[in-house]
Amino acid sequence: MSHAQCGPRRALSVGSLPCGPRDSITDVGGVTVGHATIDRGDVHTGVTVVHPCEGPVLARRPVAAAHVLNGFGKTCGLVQVSELGCLETPIALTNTLCVGRAADALVTHALREAGESGLPLPTTVNPVVGETNDGRINDIRNRSVGEKDVLAAIAGAGADFARGAVGAGRGTVCFGLKGGIGSASRLARIGERDYVVGVLVQSNFGRMPDLMAEGKPVGRRIAEELGAADRPERGSVMVVVATDAPLSSRQLGRVVRRATVGLVRCGSYMGHGSGDVFVGFTTANSMGAEKDRGLVRLDCLAEEALDPLFRACAEACEAAVLDSLMEAEPMRGLDDTIYHSLREFL
Amino acid sequence: MSHAQCGPRRALSVGSLPCGPRDSITDVGGVTVGHATIDRGDVHTGVTVVHPCEGPVLARRPVAAAHVLNGFGKTCGLVQVSELGCLETPIALTNTLCVGRAADALVTHALREAGESGLPLPTTVNPVVGETNDGRINDIRNRSVGEKDVLAAIAGAGADFARGAVGAGRGTVCFGLKGGIGSASRLARIGERDYVVGVLVQSNFGRMPDLMAEGKPVGRRIAEELGAADRPERGSVMVVVATDAPLSSRQLGRVVRRATVGLVRCGSYMGHGSGDVFVGFTTANSMGAEKDRGLVRLDCLAEEALDPLFRACAEACEAAVLDSLMEAEPMRGLDDTIYHSLREFL
Amino acid sequence: MSHAQCGPRRALSVGSLPCGPRDSITDVGGVTVGHATIDRGDVHTGVTVVHPCEGPVLARRPVAAAHVLNGFGKTCGLVQVSELGCLETPIALTNTLCVGRAADALVTHALREAGESGLPLPTTVNPVVGETNDGRINDIRNRSVGEKDVLAAIAGAGADFARGAVGAGRGTVCFGLKGGIGSASRLARIGERDYVVGVLVQSNFGRMPDLMAEGKPVGRRIAEELGAADRPERGSVMVVVATDAPLSSRQLGRVVRRATVGLVRCGSYMGHGSGDVFVGFTTANSMGAEKDRGLVRLDCLAEEALDPLFRACAEACEAAVLDSLMEAEPMRGLDDTIYHSLREFL
Amino acid sequence: MSHAQCGPRRALSVGSLPCGPRDSITDVGGVTVGHATIDRGDVHTGVTVVHPCEGPVLARRPVAAAHVLNGFGKTCGLVQVSELGCLETPIALTNTLCVGRAADALVTHALREAGESGLPLPTTVNPVVGETNDGRINDIRNRSVGEKDVLAAIAGAGADFARGAVGAGRGTVCFGLKGGIGSASRLARIGERDYVVGVLVQSNFGRMPDLMAEGKPVGRRIAEELGAADRPERGSVMVVVATDAPLSSRQLGRVVRRATVGLVRCGSYMGHGSGDVFVGFTTANSMGAEKDRGLVRLDCLAEEALDPLFRACAEACEAAVLDSLMEAEPMRGLDDTIYHSLREFL
Repeated sequence: MSHAQCGPRRALSVGSLPCGPRDSITDVGGVTVGHATIDRGDVHTGVTVVHPCEGPVLARRPVAAAHVLNGFGKTCGLVQVSELGCLETPIALTNTLCVGRAADALVTHALREAGESGLPLPTTVNPVVGETNDGRINDIRNRSVGEKDVLAAIAGAGADFARGAVGAGRGTVCFGLKGGIGSASRLARIGERDYVVGVLVQSNFGRMPDLMAEGKPVGRRIAEELGAADRPERGSVMVVVATDAPLSSRQLGRVVRRATVGLVRCGSYMGHGSGDVFVGFTTANSMGAEKDRGLVRLDCLAEEALDPLFRACAEACEAAVLDSLMEAEPMRGLDDTIYHSLREFL
Repeated sequence: MSHAQCGPRRALSVGSLPCGPRDSITDVGGVTVGHATIDRGDVHTGVTVVHPCEGPVLARRPVAAAHVLNGFGKTCGLVQVSELGCLETPIALTNTLCVGRAADALVTHALREAGESGLPLPTTVNPVVGETNDGRINDIRNRSVGEKDVLAAIAGAGADFARGAVGAGRGTVCFGLKGGIGSASRLARIGERDYVVGVLVQSNFGRMPDLMAEGKPVGRRIAEELGAADRPERGSVMVVVATDAPLSSRQLGRVVRRATVGLVRCGSYMGHGSGDVFVGFTTANSMGAEKDRGLVRLDCLAEEALDPLFRACAEACEAAVLDSLMEAEPMRGLDDTIYHSLREFL
Repeated sequence: MSHAQCGPRRALSVGSLPCGPRDSITDVGGVTVGHATIDRGDVHTGVTVVHPCEGPVLARRPVAAAHVLNGFGKTCGLVQVSELGCLETPIALTNTLCVGRAADALVTHALREAGESGLPLPTTVNPVVGETNDGRINDIRNRSVGEKDVLAAIAGAGADFARGAVGAGRGTVCFGLKGGIGSASRLARIGERDYVVGVLVQSNFGRMPDLMAEGKPVGRRIAEELGAADRPERGSVMVVVATDAPLSSRQLGRVVRRATVGLVRCGSYMGHGSGDVFVGFTTANSMGAEKDRGLVRLDCLAEEALDPLFRACAEACEAAVLDSLMEAEPMRGLDDTIYHSLREFL
Repeated sequence: MSHAQCGPRRALSVGSLPCGPRDSITDVGGVTVGHATIDRGDVHTGVTVVHPCEGPVLARRPVAAAHVLNGFGKTCGLVQVSELGCLETPIALTNTLCVGRAADALVTHALREAGESGLPLPTTVNPVVGETNDGRINDIRNRSVGEKDVLAAIAGAGADFARGAVGAGRGTVCFGLKGGIGSASRLARIGERDYVVGVLVQSNFGRMPDLMAEGKPVGRRIAEELGAADRPERGSVMVVVATDAPLSSRQLGRVVRRATVGLVRCGSYMGHGSGDVFVGFTTANSMGAEKDRGLVRLDCLAEEALDPLFRACAEACEAAVLDSLMEAEPMRGLDDTIYHSLREFL
């Protein structure tokens, strides 16, 4: 069962808003994504990096916000994002037991990049790393993601990137099917302008019978077809949200929280074992390099104008989860369970 | 168009868990609900009270938790619920501009009840009042809910209570239809025991085209049928969650947050204008009267056992919203818009 | 023992920053304060209002933030302040059992003011009311603060206002002495500019032996002098912070939290019974009236520049608490305890 | 200038409560502390580990809570501590740029320990790592703390441990003096029982002129004596709180927050650059190993009884900071500044 057998890529119909040209988080200008995928023996894991801007993140510090829907997770960096409302590094996603290594690699990158860019060498930097547990497909205790993988993912980041069972999504399982990295974007019209909201997910949550797609309970049908045993929800989902809409950190937090809607519409019941964590940033406002001392001007949309962004975030998140399922090729778990691709059933 | 024309009550099919004998928040033993409904001229509003236990709440102080999904709301009492993890009064729901009056009435009740019960007279008590904005049907600036209404609702509270366009739901609008008070319950099997999760909602949120019921986009169909103009989501929803499962305040907070799932499954996009606030309590643990100085013993379910409660809360919330729509009789808005009952369409 | 006997007002030495011309929260331009004080029989209570700007608050909605240090309190309005980051009414302070009445009166005021100003009549408004428990001096169960008192306090608000045992501070007790309303301001130099941070407190917290003033343990000395029995810390403190520094809501929250430093430096141990709640606003940024749909421009200080504001908030809070103690005339409690003025001892 | 010259250890007088036999966090039964100190060339750093119980932490999962006073810090693990209210690993403290490495080492330890103890091998574990920035004395960009250091600190943990410029405190600076690791304990009498509250700090915060000790502004005097240039507050403080009092996670959070009082009494103004993070646990309640499915019984003190614990936490934190300053030997910074020991001045 190869990926090719699944047919050409098809975006499932989600919501009512138009998507951007790539239907991807990289429709937000300046945002790039890179992967490192690791396969050897029982190891099937990797790292995915979302780079929020051109040039060093520390020199720009885009306005950011985070939301923890279910805190059964090991994400690092959120304490400072909440306090200071900005990013200082790219966002790396990986497996649960490699968070420390990925965080350390982001520090390496920040130090190196500052040196190469002639920026003052920082003595402090806040790496942001999200994770899900890919232990059903990947020998997670091997902790296979290392510094070179993170650096390679950053180095290879671009506006076009693979989706499905790649990078941090190599070993994930979602609704009992093969999960992975998915992305989507939606356009939100406010006044005379279209703003983009892009989402990237590392999908690793949900019970098969709960899966919904295009308004239909496809998970129930698949479960019957496969005669699959019901399993408790485990795993997690990481959601990265990018936008070019001018927002304060508080407003961005409100947008980011609406990713919840997308997860639930796919069938999430926010199970105990699913750590659901969202991080978002806007490319339209930034805190500047640390040593800037003057006023920072933040242009912000009026609060009453935010609804289209809320809906765009919800729809892009739903579409990104489905994208991860449609793009993922089937894989075999460590216990020989086959994790199918949703594309085999739609 | 009278309520009777809509036919006998029918609970819509929601989820997979069984409901309790009344499919009501009062399936949780000791919980009672009462209303006062006010209709005169352009005034169509009221108050609904959830009483969490037999006897004075101050003497028992059941373990409680709150969650703010969207804080565009005027709920009072949450600061102390979050700090101390318990209730001191019944929970009153009313309209946005009557929160102060309802809070004051709960203080009256607490003082009076303490006097009548021979309890020490308190000099402090934390009234919990939720609200939604019923200004489309009710002349909300009249602020018609007074002390006597709140006291009457408490006095009349029982295990059986009316649903639909009554009490605090008299003037609410939900998905462009007539909203109101709805309730439901679900049983969560953990080990050898069934625990009850009951939910009561004051529903006043959602855009008509977004309404989902029994897995179908009924709102879209209704909107076409009615040729209804699209309106932005306004209003709010208050969700009260009761359970007899032994939980700590932290655990209860995790259960209560899952009401989000129920709202989204009905079609909520968590719009800017919708203040979504949840308050929950368990009858299985209490902090006791204030002057108890010994140890308080809290029995708590193991964290890994909570998933059935999470799902029960999600399903009961979804069912309670639909209940509010099915039970509500149609009403005419202040601008002569007709707010139909969902029962007319199903 | 009359107030006059205590000698002329003296500001105690606090910290290192200069104060504004009035050493008052009203050194922040546009901010005014008014009181209504109620004395009859055993009733000694009142209301104090901080008005954050000239003209209707709803038309301006200044950027705001709140912080709960100890949530054993009944403050209302914080849920929305945290979500939307702005004020919609003046801030009223009163006694614990009159919060509902004061909230209701703020609604009356907002509706009336909108009518008089030709603003659209709101169907929603978020009253912010803080409280402390003045039940040692005031027959609190009488709930003596009514709508007319709140409206009178607003109507009488000005840049000059009485301090000490007036308004919401009429019946409060602080460190076993007579507490009340206190205020102070500090100037924070950032770049070439001086920004003002003004604080107003309703002081009702602390154990006598813990009181510190001008770096000396004066409380211990006073307790010995009076042979006063030790009593557990009860009551609460409300802190209102105003500034003209350009800040986002997130940044303002960081400033406001530093009021903690002022309380601790006076001798607070953040006792269980002391509900400590802070609300702050800036006059330099506002969200505008609700129907504005364009961009809101927020000028914000660079994060690295905030330290002087942090210190100013801490020092102004410490000075405001001491001001409340120095300005309060002594009063007799309901149980005949004399609550002395700090001025008798310094 | 050697440590010996400073004379014998002297605990400064703090507060009114008695301390435990060791005046140390290890007065809480079962708690142990270990260090690894690294000195080579410009590298002066290390790691300090607080082990909360005998035997594997994963098998016990003691009830825990965290509080972020100032989130300008890179602490990891707090998201899950807040959600699930328990610890799964020892708490490691290190320098800012080594958090990832320390987190990774805690994962190594958890996997290894599970294997050795015959526990099921976990696929998930939540490492808790705190940090401060020791870049004034230590060549922090060298990232010198590795897995073997963390494992050595755990292996060497005991009830007796060195304080001052050791472990994670090797290179820290506090109030312009040499900071480090400090510890203290206080006894809180509740009913007929004494409970212990123990605190360990990694002190790296404060401006010299602000330092207070034994109620005196010793920092001002030292600054004059040294003619030291004023520097902005940078760095951070990590506070670990342990107790044997039976508390829920919510209650423990209330206790832990009172560490704020201790920091402020030493002279903290909660500067922008100081990331202040507190983590606490109780040995009296635990969530048990993950697969336990029965009821967890939590005995909890009545809320009204907590005040002595609050005061004990405040006093132990103040004493622990002073202990870190008194125990630290003087050291030379990378720019040749001498960081003196407080012991030289008292």
